[in-house]
Amino acid sequence: MAATPQTAAPAACALTERHLRIRRLGIDTYQEPVVFLREDCHVCRSEGFESQSRVELRHGDKRIVATLNVVRAGGLIELAEDEAGLSEVAWRSIGAAERDGVSIGHPAPVESFSHVRAKVFGHEFTAPALEQVIDDIGAGRYSNIEMAAFITACAADRLNTQETVALTQAMVATGSRLSWAQRPIVDKHCVGGLPGNRTTLIIVPIIAALGLKIPKTSSRAITSPAGTADTMETLAPVALDVPSMRRVVEREGGCIVWGGAVALSPADDVLIRVERPLDLDGDAQLVASVMSKKAAAGSTHVVIDVPVGPTAKVRSESAGHALAWQLIEVGRALGLHVDVMLTDGTQPVGCGIGPALEARDVLAVLRNDAAAPADLRERAIMLAGRIVELAQLAPPNSGTALAAQALADGRAWTKFQAIAEAQGGLRVPPTAREHHIVAATQSGDVLGIDNRRLARIAKLAGAPLVPAAGLDLHVKIGSQVEKGQPLYTIHAQSLGELHYALDYAQAQQQVIALGTRP
Amino acid sequence: MAATPQTAAPAACALTERHLRIRRLGIDTYQEPVVFLREDCHVCRSEGFESQSRVELRHGDKRIVATLNVVRAGGLIELAEDEAGLSEVAWRSIGAAERDGVSIGHPAPVESFSHVRAKVFGHEFTAPALEQVIDDIGAGRYSNIEMAAFITACAADRLNTQETVALTQAMVATGSRLSWAQRPIVDKHCVGGLPGNRTTLIIVPIIAALGLKIPKTSSRAITSPAGTADTMETLAPVALDVPSMRRVVEREGGCIVWGGAVALSPADDVLIRVERPLDLDGDAQLVASVMSKKAAAGSTHVVIDVPVGPTAKVRSESAGHALAWQLIEVGRALGLHVDVMLTDGTQPVGCGIGPALEARDVLAVLRNDAAAPADLRERAIMLAGRIVELAQLAPPNSGTALAAQALADGRAWTKFQAIAEAQGGLRVPPTAREHHIVAATQSGDVLGIDNRRLARIAKLAGAPLVPAAGLDLHVKIGSQVEKGQPLYTIHAQSLGELHYALDYAQAQQQVIALGTRP
Repeated sequence: MAATPQTAAPAACALTERHLRIRRLGIDTYQEPVVFLREDCHVCRSEGFESQSRVELRHGDKRIVATLNVVRAGGLIELAEDEAGLSEVAWRSIGAAERDGVSIGHPAPVESFSHVRAKVFGHEFTAPALEQVIDDIGAGRYSNIEMAAFITACAADRLNTQETVALTQAMVATGSRLSWAQRPIVDKHCVGGLPGNRTTLIIVPIIAALGLKIPKTSSRAITSPAGTADTMETLAPVALDVPSMRRVVEREGGCIVWGGAVALSPADDVLIRVERPLDLDGDAQLVASVMSKKAAAGSTHVVIDVPVGPTAKVRSESAGHALAWQLIEVGRALGLHVDVMLTDGTQPVGCGIGPALEARDVLAVLRNDAAAPADLRERAIMLAGRIVELAQLAPPNSGTALAAQALADGRAWTKFQAIAEAQGGLRVPPTAREHHIVAATQSGDVLGIDNRRLARIAKLAGAPLVPAAGLDLHVKIGSQVEKGQPLYTIHAQSLGELHYALDYAQAQQQVIALGTRP
Repeated sequence: MAATPQTAAPAACALTERHLRIRRLGIDTYQEPVVFLREDCHVCRSEGFESQSRVELRHGDKRIVATLNVVRAGGLIELAEDEAGLSEVAWRSIGAAERDGVSIGHPAPVESFSHVRAKVFGHEFTAPALEQVIDDIGAGRYSNIEMAAFITACAADRLNTQETVALTQAMVATGSRLSWAQRPIVDKHCVGGLPGNRTTLIIVPIIAALGLKIPKTSSRAITSPAGTADTMETLAPVALDVPSMRRVVEREGGCIVWGGAVALSPADDVLIRVERPLDLDGDAQLVASVMSKKAAAGSTHVVIDVPVGPTAKVRSESAGHALAWQLIEVGRALGLHVDVMLTDGTQPVGCGIGPALEARDVLAVLRNDAAAPADLRERAIMLAGRIVELAQLAPPNSGTALAAQALADGRAWTKFQAIAEAQGGLRVPPTAREHHIVAATQSGDVLGIDNRRLARIAKLAGAPLVPAAGLDLHVKIGSQVEKGQPLYTIHAQSLGELHYALDYAQAQQQVIALGTRP
């Protein structure tokens, strides 16, 4: 019995390490690393581990934290007493070989969660506190429920501008950061919430065709049926690493790649895995997520599209102004020129909702098809024009004409194909196996369209995980329809998903509101 | 291609159901039910399931919702293509036999989470909204991250009294409710945060010995090293069902059982599994948790102990008053007479921290040992006295004497043994294998004791999951100590846990603050 704790210090490390051989179980636990140990394994006994304990696995310099599931001896899992079974993500993260030896022990307690607790109880986050939290999240030290608590504590208007700036800077600090020889480096972003608003795939080639550099990184869907990266992926590879992305931009002036692969803000990508099922991303999360990626991408001039509508992510002009103010303030704090456009968010843009269906609309616009959705074309030209003006390539009110010209004369389409080729080759978007037309149950004018519930139907149909899934909208606000006329068509890859989407659609009233115009 | 969704409705149900044979995998996933399906299983393919999908399993009338983990074919898990492997909790909940057929499909979307989302964005909960949320949580329809978001959204002071009353009533509604022939039915509760404050085990026998009925249900630890149920369990069985509990109370006038087993507020017990790792339980959660159990237990008169101190759960007089007000208001709304006592929360009560060590202190007081901790005895007598007065068995200011008498003359100890026997037999608390004395690194007076960090050390040592683990405090505020004199002894069952606790203890300054009194 030692008389002072000091004497125990060196022993501790040795004693809390135990060696096991790892086995790949082939269990997909999504993104939460899980390790399976036998209940009679010496580590469980000596360390007092139980299910849901957070354990640290070490292999050489590599350390990962995983959630423990204890396995009953004589169960259906072929694990020996001295083996640790790893889930797929744990297997990938540790990067070792079958039956390699790993040491396993208690991870250091995640002290930074006390800052989250303090925030929940009404204290402000300090910049150092947010650095610790984001650093721990980026390193995978937070469990899913700890991240859910952090996200909830930051949601809505719970972070002030100072905290949001600190959160943004912390996110930039966790990842790689691009720097470019010349400036301006322009960029655009849409805060989303508007199905089908896939202007990026049109704006980037227009801007690049006009000679500006636009290294665009996009996210996959968080709570929507499709993110720009999901849509672009149906047309070309998007998971490029930094050197490849740089090569594309040097050569073509622009790119449309997935931000996750270039790890410009890795903590944000980790948080997204919890924000997504919670369908809960607040203003501060949103601003930090957007601005951290712009700053890390080395952008100097950024135009942000904020669709406003009763069922868009931003529901009112005033909410739009508040968000715009935060975006501009945080941008300034990071040394970026930010311009925000509040746009019409009353109904979806284009016809398709879902990666492949939106890609089809984009191609129609780029190719100047007569049948191309006019609303998508106009939005893209308007935003591209604003970028051109912000970058001072054209005087105020003349950017739109410049952008329209680059699209009309085919330079944008040529540039898009060149970018797609540079990213790994232009692809043809997939089409779904199952279709179901939802028809009008009465005649009348389309008075309103519920973006959220349409998005929900597209998600239940499988989007974005099934790229061909989603829905195709056949009407716009103001359309006159007869009873029995198609309103939208649901696209799905499996009958189960088709019916799941239908079950929900049928339970809803007025997703597309029909009536007589006052 | 059908022309209207209606035609698909009946088909949907049939199509979203798939039959599989269940296998018990023997994987302990704590309390989140998990089902394992092969990636090439027809259900995954036809339903578009992927890992982390929430799926519904049906066996007869029994339905459970579980999280899906997809298993690679040819992995180490012996699952056939048409088999569903269940984790232990999923296996227990479905209550079927090996290789029984179950149908599996998409669960109905948990619509009530939209109320949580609305709350996060600043809207008040309506009573019906909270009913739906709590009903879904009680039925296990919420995932862990959804519960984490709900808990965070309710934490601190985010629920007003009206919402707290509604939450409490919703919790009562989900569980069984006891009714008693006579009244008063008295009860007590401590809001906790004060290590070693195990007065219940002394108060119940005193009150029962004085002839009042006190059917006490206690919780296991949520965020502390020991709950009353954990401590009592080292002395007697506590997992009694309602009929057994009723029998004990009819016979002995009182009991000390685990609330979880009698399911007086099952939704609360489900929430606790997420509150515990988050170490995050706010006022409203606390009030609803306490009052729902009192109401469900059929109590009519309740005395609540609120320890106040800089490192107790309640840190200031004003915070104590706010909590007291909520407890009394919510009690009134539920028809209960509630009396709140703000007590000294500056340091632990008794010497032991951890289930078995606290039980040892309790036995010393009940047996009137000369060495018994005086502070524990006095608190118990004071609270018992207040209960006696609230129940009008004695006039104001004379309850304490009555209580003290029942303890001093051995009636309380006799009654405690009778209750323990009635609950299944008196036990001897276990003792730990490993001990380590933490000694003073300087001489001086004990100026302060940090309850939270002491509790943290006891938890790292294994409490409450390891009943014998925890620590034994050798000093009180005001004690004079010499350098090298023992301050406290850490008790652990494994060296790993002992050193884990020590590593943390060593990193802390002034857990027990030594200095010269001003």
